[in-house]
Amino acid sequence: MLGRHYPSQTCSAAGALELVGERWSLLILRDALFRRHTRFSEFERSLGIAPNILTKRLENFVADDLMVVGATQGGMREYHLTEKGRGLKSVIIALNHWGDRWLKQGPVDYVHEGCGGVIKQTIACDSCGNDVALDQVSVRRVIA
Amino acid sequence: MLGRHYPSQTCSAAGALELVGERWSLLILRDALFRRHTRFSEFERSLGIAPNILTKRLENFVADDLMVVGATQGGMREYHLTEKGRGLKSVIIALNHWGDRWLKQGPVDYVHEGCGGVIKQTIACDSCGNDVALDQVSVRRVIA
Repeated sequence: MLGRHYPSQTCSAAGALELVGERWSLLILRDALFRRHTRFSEFERSLGIAPNILTKRLENFVADDLMVVGATQGGMREYHLTEKGRGLKSVIIALNHWGDRWLKQGPVDYVHEGCGGVIKQTIACDSCGNDVALDQVSVRRVIA
Repeated sequence: MLGRHYPSQTCSAAGALELVGERWSLLILRDALFRRHTRFSEFERSLGIAPNILTKRLENFVADDLMVVGATQGGMREYHLTEKGRGLKSVIIALNHWGDRWLKQGPVDYVHEGCGGVIKQTIACDSCGNDVALDQVSVRRVIA
């Protein structure tokens, strides 16, 4: 079994992947984020994922504060995203936009709830305010 | 060995994860995108990744048109990102921003090459033009 950690890697993207980079993780989060699934049986049915893997992923999400677990009045366990978990929407949207562009369009659009328009993810410079093309983004080390 | 495919999942994000969702894949692409690594030995040194895994990942990237392989005058193999591969910058940036916010800041900033300012990734509505908060993004099925 491959570990989920990247001990030699210190960047924030690697840190994020330690929490959400395992097989099925981002698809479980996609269903929680956009299909509003909360129950084990909903994820299991939607993803066709092995129960032992799903159990492990949900346990890790709770341990890592991406989800909290509660119970309905009927005693069913429910998994709800925290603000930290909801922040991963931007990662799902980026993956989806790339897949739409380079693999196959659809079957869903990501839309603005306010007006129903299709959303786009863009990059702007916080300093000069201009839109920034991907090939104009580079990295600068800020912590030794 | 877990497969890399999600045959029950038709969305573009799942399609993207079939190409870049395996362990180490996005970190190899990060180094190609932002450290401009092109050689096997550079990735191996930077990531501390097992050579057989790195070989497999690079082979898949070439097969999936994320990279092309060429050779220097000295006969060294070099792996260069295609436009399709370069498009994944937005995914790395999204992961990094989330990690910076929720895990630990740094050690790099993503900056605008033009002016050196820090960039931000935002979501806007293509229809009404407004900035859209993450909790105002939902999905709409467009293909049955």
